[in-house]
Amino acid sequence: MTKAGKAKTEKRAQAGKTGTGEAEFKVTFLPEQKAVTVEKGVSLLEAAERAGVYVNSLCGGQGLCGECRLKVTSGKAKADKHAIGFFSGEEIRNGYVLACQTRVEDNLEVLVPVKSRLEMEKIVTEGVPVTYSEPGKTALHRITSDPATLFDPLVTKVYLELPEPTMQDNIADIDRVVRELRKKLTYKDYEMSLDCLRNLAENLRQNEWKLTATVARHDAAGRILQLEPGNTADRNYGLAIDVGTTTVVVQLVQMKTGKVLGVEGNHNLQARYGEDVISRMIFACGRGSLDPVHEAVITDINALTRALVQEKGIRLEDITCAVAAGNTTMSHFLLGLMPCAIRLEPYVPTATVYPQIKAADIGVNINPQGIIEVLPSVASYVGGDIVAGVLACGLADHPEIRCLIDVGTNGEIVVGNNEWMVCCSASAGPAFEGGGIKAGMRASKGAIEKVKIDGDKVNIATIGNARPRGICGSGLIDSIYELARNGIITRDGKFNLSHKDKRLVKEGRVPQYVISPAEEAEGGEDIAITETDIANIIKSKGAVFAALKSLVDYTGLGFHQLEAVYLAGGFGSSLDIEKGVAIGLLPDIDRKKIQFIGNSSIIGARIALLSTPAFEKALTIAKNMTNIELSNYPPFMQEFVAALFLPHTEDKLFPSIRY
Amino acid sequence: MTKAGKAKTEKRAQAGKTGTGEAEFKVTFLPEQKAVTVEKGVSLLEAAERAGVYVNSLCGGQGLCGECRLKVTSGKAKADKHAIGFFSGEEIRNGYVLACQTRVEDNLEVLVPVKSRLEMEKIVTEGVPVTYSEPGKTALHRITSDPATLFDPLVTKVYLELPEPTMQDNIADIDRVVRELRKKLTYKDYEMSLDCLRNLAENLRQNEWKLTATVARHDAAGRILQLEPGNTADRNYGLAIDVGTTTVVVQLVQMKTGKVLGVEGNHNLQARYGEDVISRMIFACGRGSLDPVHEAVITDINALTRALVQEKGIRLEDITCAVAAGNTTMSHFLLGLMPCAIRLEPYVPTATVYPQIKAADIGVNINPQGIIEVLPSVASYVGGDIVAGVLACGLADHPEIRCLIDVGTNGEIVVGNNEWMVCCSASAGPAFEGGGIKAGMRASKGAIEKVKIDGDKVNIATIGNARPRGICGSGLIDSIYELARNGIITRDGKFNLSHKDKRLVKEGRVPQYVISPAEEAEGGEDIAITETDIANIIKSKGAVFAALKSLVDYTGLGFHQLEAVYLAGGFGSSLDIEKGVAIGLLPDIDRKKIQFIGNSSIIGARIALLSTPAFEKALTIAKNMTNIELSNYPPFMQEFVAALFLPHTEDKLFPSIRY
Repeated sequence: MTKAGKAKTEKRAQAGKTGTGEAEFKVTFLPEQKAVTVEKGVSLLEAAERAGVYVNSLCGGQGLCGECRLKVTSGKAKADKHAIGFFSGEEIRNGYVLACQTRVEDNLEVLVPVKSRLEMEKIVTEGVPVTYSEPGKTALHRITSDPATLFDPLVTKVYLELPEPTMQDNIADIDRVVRELRKKLTYKDYEMSLDCLRNLAENLRQNEWKLTATVARHDAAGRILQLEPGNTADRNYGLAIDVGTTTVVVQLVQMKTGKVLGVEGNHNLQARYGEDVISRMIFACGRGSLDPVHEAVITDINALTRALVQEKGIRLEDITCAVAAGNTTMSHFLLGLMPCAIRLEPYVPTATVYPQIKAADIGVNINPQGIIEVLPSVASYVGGDIVAGVLACGLADHPEIRCLIDVGTNGEIVVGNNEWMVCCSASAGPAFEGGGIKAGMRASKGAIEKVKIDGDKVNIATIGNARPRGICGSGLIDSIYELARNGIITRDGKFNLSHKDKRLVKEGRVPQYVISPAEEAEGGEDIAITETDIANIIKSKGAVFAALKSLVDYTGLGFHQLEAVYLAGGFGSSLDIEKGVAIGLLPDIDRKKIQFIGNSSIIGARIALLSTPAFEKALTIAKNMTNIELSNYPPFMQEFVAALFLPHTEDKLFPSIRY
Repeated sequence: MTKAGKAKTEKRAQAGKTGTGEAEFKVTFLPEQKAVTVEKGVSLLEAAERAGVYVNSLCGGQGLCGECRLKVTSGKAKADKHAIGFFSGEEIRNGYVLACQTRVEDNLEVLVPVKSRLEMEKIVTEGVPVTYSEPGKTALHRITSDPATLFDPLVTKVYLELPEPTMQDNIADIDRVVRELRKKLTYKDYEMSLDCLRNLAENLRQNEWKLTATVARHDAAGRILQLEPGNTADRNYGLAIDVGTTTVVVQLVQMKTGKVLGVEGNHNLQARYGEDVISRMIFACGRGSLDPVHEAVITDINALTRALVQEKGIRLEDITCAVAAGNTTMSHFLLGLMPCAIRLEPYVPTATVYPQIKAADIGVNINPQGIIEVLPSVASYVGGDIVAGVLACGLADHPEIRCLIDVGTNGEIVVGNNEWMVCCSASAGPAFEGGGIKAGMRASKGAIEKVKIDGDKVNIATIGNARPRGICGSGLIDSIYELARNGIITRDGKFNLSHKDKRLVKEGRVPQYVISPAEEAEGGEDIAITETDIANIIKSKGAVFAALKSLVDYTGLGFHQLEAVYLAGGFGSSLDIEKGVAIGLLPDIDRKKIQFIGNSSIIGARIALLSTPAFEKALTIAKNMTNIELSNYPPFMQEFVAALFLPHTEDKLFPSIRY
């Protein structure tokens, strides 16, 4: 419940006491049949929130984004003037309203249309297999070739049985603890907070000198986080967190074994303050403030964590560590740091390496002494998510030159090996995540992820085999390729209107190609691709490819010298590499060298959580990577223009592609 | 105001609102003429507290200690049955009551007798001159011979003017700060809290990239405590705190120059929970709890600090660092650590080295990011005050063997040099601080500090040349010596009743020697010494000497091999070394080798505050000192028995002394 909602609930409670009374109405949300009673004048968006029904909203309830469309099916509700800009006359007659601009003044039944509903993402968490050496064996033998595989969690719990003090051995209690810890761990120095010392004397004497120490790596020292009576060494869990601009994903990990017990993800609540990092920065630094943006992501993390611990039956207090990866702006929002100078030249973050802090200091609910580490960034537009990606694909561990391409709203690219790395970031737009695309959606249930066009026939596959709701990244790549291959669009992305195809139709004056007709679709409307959609996708793939080409040229290498190309991002799990090359997103090299690794940010966060040397490696990676600012790099714009074609204006760059 | 007082004030305020009303009475305290209005039933002790009148109380208002005597001069107040144990019938008829056991049920005028008043101590802060090398020059050249003299404060403020970022130099804001700090300070690594990073971006851009960094030593790294806009480098102050069992003393120090701006001291409020460390431990670990004992000393420190900053016109926020020295139990209470295992065999503290913490974490009101360091202890009964003393007298800095004797309720002794140190602690009793002595008092205004007896004539000198109120430690040493020298007492401390002296009188059956007759004394009563007083002083000096003898014997040395003997403690500033030797408190060696250094605890705390190498040296001192547990060391008891004589049963130990 929002603060406003809470305040109103309290107000209502008081009103009840004094007996003044207020008109109240019942609002029922369909299809979930969730009902709530609210006082007169509350917005439908607020009512939905109180009912626990999630409705899209990007502008924070200002009537600007048009995302919170609801259809009133029973009761009176007026569409206000904001609504007129977003709905046709027919829609308004049919009861469509904007939830944020509509006040409850009657008992209502309201349908939340498919497009306004948020559903769980299909989260791609794995791709690169990560295997760890045996626990226990490894802490002493740090190998440099691939530290990511060295199992040595950031926080360990150690059970200790201490000898009782005597007159001959009456050192201080904490020294007795540390003496024993030195036998079991490799840290030379130990730090502790005052909290650890409080009640230590009593705890030891009441529990037969048996206790469990929770120890975190802090720089080169061991930081004693807590000293619990008895043996709790088996109750040690960690969180790997991917703080994406659009999605927040949390994995619950058993620290002793490295086993992933569960994963939960949700849309980043910050979407209320803007869809992309730029608009959120404008909100936080301008008309709004930092606090709500910071609190939104914390709310997300806490909700996902709560869901995980409830499902697995563990206690929040037994989570001792969290590692978060996000782009630089997300990391700033997470930590409550002002990101304002990131947005404009010369693009300066407050910090790229973040202090180890208590999770509680930023409101993340785990053990009160538990820590959170935020993976370091390289620069304002190459963040901890990319550093995590480099950890995940092992790019920095081998002498062969490899490449990581992470496609989100920005496309970030890293090229390098264990000795050097260069990186850059290009504004790719949200097309591959379904943004700015009429029927686009993220890779969640009902998203069309595979498309094959044979004459009039269109074969599709959806996530979860559900009725189609829209098209996700991999489906869009397939669609563009199939449209071009069948001659339905030209190589500059325009519809070939002479092509006779009953699926090539016009809505109003706008031509579009129907991938899934209304009668088959979940929303009861055609799922189709417009020329604007195609242009957006070509711009996105062009920006990514141009950035990659610029970076490879900068290093003096050719594509064929890349030993491997790892592709990360939220395309959906069924990305067809061949079609990615065919539309000019990926370079035309041996397909076996190209691998889709999904959400490399959370993989990297988990690797750092489970491997202290990997965490330390992340610091080195961030420090040593050279960032090329493309906005300051003239060849990039030329490359971008040249890439706005299928697959590219220079055919010789894509010798194997023939449409 | 106590919590109870506050609660009652609030209750009164509420009563006023509801109009129920309560009987209220005015209480006026003489001689200060301070008045307060309280509701019916409040204790006189509470009323005094609310009026800002300090009344002695050792038992915490339980009617057990008899310290809070007041005389009701106007109005009705009943002495309850507790009072009967403490007052004669005449006193009760004259209006004497115990403040804690007397409820206000009338308008009252109350006299606070001299003995029940607490007055400011005459605080001895200097003795050993400490000179520092020039600031700035020294940080790079650490000398090992006497680090205490190396000026390099624990917390420094550095003014920085940063170059503005450009596209060619767009490192993170905090990296820009650290890059500049590295040019001005010698720390290689820097740590910072999240608080420092918050608003950094905004502060830098709104203040032309000019800021002041406050940096503390933390292990080998620089810990950035705060980053303030503009140049505040001149506003940097520190506190040196002596947390004594009886007295708390705070010095305000200008960190840039090392100048002591002011000093304030007061009785330790913990006295409410017991006069000595043992009874406070019993309270905290048994019938009471730790919290009030912890809070009492924090209240003291905050009150003293507030007085200092008000007097000097500086802001609390400009105090960035505090260094506290106290015995091990006091350090535990200060930090809120349970000291229960210190009291009984095998005497184990929770910690002897204490983490650097934010002062705010224990409620000490300075800059919210300011730190407090508590000097390390050696063992349960050799604390940070002794380590401070070793710093203060330079015992650990030279190859010559020296000795430090710190006399309080415990007598702690250190013998050693720059290579080795042994120490011990003996229960000396509070006699030299005026405790357990009928007319005893601490070295504050009106205390008799010098006594000379010539026949019937007694010449005295008092602190502040005030009318005499009692006798402090140096006055007691003088008295015992003079009584023995004049044959008024025998060498085993009994009155020679055959001695004809009009000052040797009997009160009831108890003989006593009048040092200052009633008509000259501030309290209007004889200031006299009884046989019990003499026995207590002999026990105290015997315990100290026996401990010293045991320790010197343990090392295989003789007294004459001691290059210097430093005597510290609250005797008063006019301690006569010759008389100290003559009564057998100090060894009979060349008098020039013996030096009284006063409150060496606060000197050492200030040295550590102003000298990082000295602080580090304190850690080494505490770690390397060998503690001899006298309770486990049979020779001590023999030495003690042998020392219960003036000067000693073995004349050959005091060859120069002839009575």
